[in-house]
Amino acid sequence: MLLRRALAELLGTMLLVATVVGSGVMAERLAGGNVALALLANTAATAAALLALITMLAPVSGAHFNPVVSVVEALGGALPWRALPAYLSAQLIGGVAGTVLAHLMFELPPVSLSTHARAGPAQILSEVVATAGLLLVIAGVSRARPAAVAGCVAAWIAAAYWFTASTSFANPAVTIARALSDTFAGIRPLDVPGFLVGQAGGAVLAVLATRALWPRQEQA
Amino acid sequence: MLLRRALAELLGTMLLVATVVGSGVMAERLAGGNVALALLANTAATAAALLALITMLAPVSGAHFNPVVSVVEALGGALPWRALPAYLSAQLIGGVAGTVLAHLMFELPPVSLSTHARAGPAQILSEVVATAGLLLVIAGVSRARPAAVAGCVAAWIAAAYWFTASTSFANPAVTIARALSDTFAGIRPLDVPGFLVGQAGGAVLAVLATRALWPRQEQA
Amino acid sequence: MLLRRALAELLGTMLLVATVVGSGVMAERLAGGNVALALLANTAATAAALLALITMLAPVSGAHFNPVVSVVEALGGALPWRALPAYLSAQLIGGVAGTVLAHLMFELPPVSLSTHARAGPAQILSEVVATAGLLLVIAGVSRARPAAVAGCVAAWIAAAYWFTASTSFANPAVTIARALSDTFAGIRPLDVPGFLVGQAGGAVLAVLATRALWPRQEQA
Amino acid sequence: MLLRRALAELLGTMLLVATVVGSGVMAERLAGGNVALALLANTAATAAALLALITMLAPVSGAHFNPVVSVVEALGGALPWRALPAYLSAQLIGGVAGTVLAHLMFELPPVSLSTHARAGPAQILSEVVATAGLLLVIAGVSRARPAAVAGCVAAWIAAAYWFTASTSFANPAVTIARALSDTFAGIRPLDVPGFLVGQAGGAVLAVLATRALWPRQEQA
Repeated sequence: MLLRRALAELLGTMLLVATVVGSGVMAERLAGGNVALALLANTAATAAALLALITMLAPVSGAHFNPVVSVVEALGGALPWRALPAYLSAQLIGGVAGTVLAHLMFELPPVSLSTHARAGPAQILSEVVATAGLLLVIAGVSRARPAAVAGCVAAWIAAAYWFTASTSFANPAVTIARALSDTFAGIRPLDVPGFLVGQAGGAVLAVLATRALWPRQEQA
Repeated sequence: MLLRRALAELLGTMLLVATVVGSGVMAERLAGGNVALALLANTAATAAALLALITMLAPVSGAHFNPVVSVVEALGGALPWRALPAYLSAQLIGGVAGTVLAHLMFELPPVSLSTHARAGPAQILSEVVATAGLLLVIAGVSRARPAAVAGCVAAWIAAAYWFTASTSFANPAVTIARALSDTFAGIRPLDVPGFLVGQAGGAVLAVLATRALWPRQEQA
Repeated sequence: MLLRRALAELLGTMLLVATVVGSGVMAERLAGGNVALALLANTAATAAALLALITMLAPVSGAHFNPVVSVVEALGGALPWRALPAYLSAQLIGGVAGTVLAHLMFELPPVSLSTHARAGPAQILSEVVATAGLLLVIAGVSRARPAAVAGCVAAWIAAAYWFTASTSFANPAVTIARALSDTFAGIRPLDVPGFLVGQAGGAVLAVLATRALWPRQEQA
Repeated sequence: MLLRRALAELLGTMLLVATVVGSGVMAERLAGGNVALALLANTAATAAALLALITMLAPVSGAHFNPVVSVVEALGGALPWRALPAYLSAQLIGGVAGTVLAHLMFELPPVSLSTHARAGPAQILSEVVATAGLLLVIAGVSRARPAAVAGCVAAWIAAAYWFTASTSFANPAVTIARALSDTFAGIRPLDVPGFLVGQAGGAVLAVLATRALWPRQEQA
């Protein structure tokens, strides 16, 4: 039973990362140096994959595909703490598998350390905002309109690809997986810790804001 | 209770403005002078953020994020008049905070007066049309299919970014906040009053058209 | 009561045409000669407007905004024949008003005869396909999932902007209104009759295919 | 009764292929050599058509438009085996008719053998991933949220246009039909067998993964 849920997390995170990395490769190859156009294609593919994958796998595992989401769900009591190690492992393994899968489809070496610099306080602030927003969208929408969570998560990430300076990773498993891809969507391993700090900070902010916006006694 | 609703309005307006301004900065930086491509990315990000933010916060505050919407809701009896000052303050503060947040994420000064001229009767007419349409969409869709309001507001604004000459501000709090950003999405402070007049005119038109299209006795 | 429905048809057709024409002007001005990019923006704006306007006005008038749709609804018994003249007049007046409104927003003369040639059998075949498909989508989706009609009509028109050679007018009122706009979305008055013939042919095909696909006895 | 369902499969596959091929022609003609922009338009048109066509025809035939889907439905007991020949024939005929229709709308010869090379193991792996994902999306979403299948299939295909190296054919009838079009969307006849092998492999993977993720006793 937990195995089945872990399989769903692994599969979903793998296909999500394969989409992010693979569509970045395709977009960069075709865009002829026009980065806005490449990012627009990358955004559309990512949002579309999120919609399909979350809708498909939410009934199995909750479709977190994201360690920050799983930890917050555990804190809120929606995920048993004893399930957390399986979820996090599945997400990390799935993420790396997604990078490898994308690379194989595009005839690249299975993994390659990224040289894409994404450093500095503005990048970390961007991850705070992107992650806090993601968690608030999940918290708010799942309370009142659970069937709309997939679409709203996809929409939030699509917006955050453009309005944050980091293009919104907002996911530690995806961040680590993207460090293993020296392509459009990559991130220099050196810059990963800063992103993880930003994501953790965003999670803390989101937990506080969730308590203020949706106090327990009003939950359904 | 009202504080919680004001917090929702502040948060929503802040993230909406951060999206509009931030995605404008990102799009302009990446688009290499192709304004159509920049506006397309700006449109997609704005519509996506509206969908996620309205769906998330509508159960808390109604998710107006817009003084014109709040005033019309008060006129229609859906928002108590005594709540109006808190709503409007939250929207104005949230809007300015959104500009500051976007600027910080992109390593720009917190505020900067826009030099983007948007003047003349055609611009004001555009704001009349954009605002009247927005209010009619809210009025009509919330009557028959309230769950579709977020998607339809996002769709209307996306269309109006392109079919009006002003790129559809349709929101006094967002207009003021964008005056403080000398970037793609900015508006010269000098041109703000004309936009506000157009938005007020659109609201008057929308109230009249709403009474003609959905007379009271037929409301649910 | 009929007046209210005619007002809805006039308003919806006006805003639809204003979107098609206005977003065409904006897109052409910004796209710097890149026609694919201009058509992509034009497509996105049109689809978004259709989604918002149909969802808003369907409970009032059915949200036809299209004489071919109204005639087919009358043939099928869903619209009383005596209401047809009001619907068609409202759509024609609304369409022309939409062109004028778009032109005023972009500081163009209120009307101008288009010089955009769209002639030949391939263009007419395109209108047959676009119109037949539109009517079949409406027929099929309104039977099983009426709440999805707005989204599916928007999606069909978006697809048909690209897969037909005529960019899918599929609407006599919109065709006539676009003849009065010498802009991106225009059509030479000389070419209008061919388009209307194609649209009528598509309607005949659609009525036959509707009877085959959804025979009466199986209707809900 | 089966005739009616076969008609739906023929019509749907025809319009789907007409969209894929036709929008490819239009996009290539307008994009001035910018392949990313052409593929973006091709993607948007295909996803939009899938949403409209599946929603429209699912209540009639299930809206497979794809031999792999029909075979898997037969294996799962949802489609009687005796209906399979009619489904497959309708899809193959419909696909070819779609190519012819698109060509006629764009004044091209009715059929033309493609010279677009799409060969090698990375292409075949891409088809495995695209097809397996498509079938898993259908399996998962149709269990828990059948009304969301059309949107999720459209989203999956949109993502897979970009994140697979083959641009995701994932459909034997569409693959064969596209071999008859020497245009943007074409595939060299020589490369068709490899694609069909990849699609079959993806189907096998998907059947296994479906059993693991949604074991029978938990089905609704």
